[in-house]
Amino acid sequence: MSAISEIAPDPGQMPPLRVAMLVYPMMTLLDLAGPQAALGMHGETYLVWKDREPVPTDSGVTIIPTHSFDDCPRDIDVLFAPGGFGTDSWMEDDAVIDFLADAGKTAKYVTSVCSGSLLLAAAGLLDGYRAGTHWAARDALATLGVEVSDERVVTDRNRMTGGGVTAGIDFGLTLLAELRGEMVAKSTTLAMEYNPYPPFKGGTPATADPEILQALSGMMTEMDDRVLNTAKRVADKRAG
Amino acid sequence: MSAISEIAPDPGQMPPLRVAMLVYPMMTLLDLAGPQAALGMHGETYLVWKDREPVPTDSGVTIIPTHSFDDCPRDIDVLFAPGGFGTDSWMEDDAVIDFLADAGKTAKYVTSVCSGSLLLAAAGLLDGYRAGTHWAARDALATLGVEVSDERVVTDRNRMTGGGVTAGIDFGLTLLAELRGEMVAKSTTLAMEYNPYPPFKGGTPATADPEILQALSGMMTEMDDRVLNTAKRVADKRAG
Repeated sequence: MSAISEIAPDPGQMPPLRVAMLVYPMMTLLDLAGPQAALGMHGETYLVWKDREPVPTDSGVTIIPTHSFDDCPRDIDVLFAPGGFGTDSWMEDDAVIDFLADAGKTAKYVTSVCSGSLLLAAAGLLDGYRAGTHWAARDALATLGVEVSDERVVTDRNRMTGGGVTAGIDFGLTLLAELRGEMVAKSTTLAMEYNPYPPFKGGTPATADPEILQALSGMMTEMDDRVLNTAKRVADKRAG
Repeated sequence: MSAISEIAPDPGQMPPLRVAMLVYPMMTLLDLAGPQAALGMHGETYLVWKDREPVPTDSGVTIIPTHSFDDCPRDIDVLFAPGGFGTDSWMEDDAVIDFLADAGKTAKYVTSVCSGSLLLAAAGLLDGYRAGTHWAARDALATLGVEVSDERVVTDRNRMTGGGVTAGIDFGLTLLAELRGEMVAKSTTLAMEYNPYPPFKGGTPATADPEILQALSGMMTEMDDRVLNTAKRVADKRAG
């Protein structure tokens, strides 16, 4: 339990949530920080990597894992994978994929935000499920055989996946409502002062200025190609 | 520059932003992660504390400072203070307050989110300015002689302050527009897929269900009293 749990707005005596969050080099910090703010208040967060060495995220903030793949508890309420600029580097990494596949067997909810869904898919955890991802990763997710949705938060049985980066807050509160009920989720909404007021519209390809979408997509082409090629290799390997 | 800067949607050849973010034990990770996602893509982030030992945040994630108070560059574009459950522990800490007061002299923008404004105020950086804070910290901020606003993002000359926790994303994009223009801020909005869709309303005291506000405020009473008492001591010391 963390310090913030002093004011955890849980009515009654529910056991603390156990949330295992994959961390990895070049993940996006906000992908994790959004859901972790919503869920971490109500239990324990396990930050899980191959070892407990510091993990650099893709915007320059370094975090410290609390558990290794070996010692992460498996009786967890939530398994979560964030996305990021380094996601494709780990889609073919046996240790990462084996951990996700194994932990996903017993987790009550198997979840992700942003391009984290590519990791779940590479581990076979989205076979036969509908899922979301960052808009720039949708082709790659479809390549992995997943039914891709453009909803901000996608729930399909016990799989819950979110769109890009900032969708993690909406995802975290939606999942919290599933796990602890609407009153707790609403109380947490107030604690986080979640009354967003975006200074600019255009947070999706459909609503962005066409010239901004074009310019950004152009800058992301190299990375998008790399992710798509990785997804194709993973899909071929899983098929063969 | 971080890996994410590969796709930094900066037109032209503007110099990288230099953003110094105070970190401290029991700060709220999301207070920092929101603005850092928006700004970090466009330059360098200095995570600054007394030393470079790992800093635990209030929800259980530990991060690593990149600079100490002594070696943090002072020619910075932005000085930023996050809030959190541990804010009041540092309002009377000379090393913290001296660093903020000193770095605030030369920073182009002096900024905070959530209860971080209490630290700026304790350092005298909000004297004569209007500022925002987490709704639960407004009385404490007023006690420090600041004109308190309930706007989500408050700009008063080169002071920019945000409301609680999730306001950091709105704050970060608003500040980015000031520093790099609207095109860059809009492109970053799209990169972060910032099209929020809160699953629940009630993210402010004015819009929350009254019984939820009452219950949460009740749980926070002890902490609120502690923060208010600290603010009173700081105000008395500064007056005397």
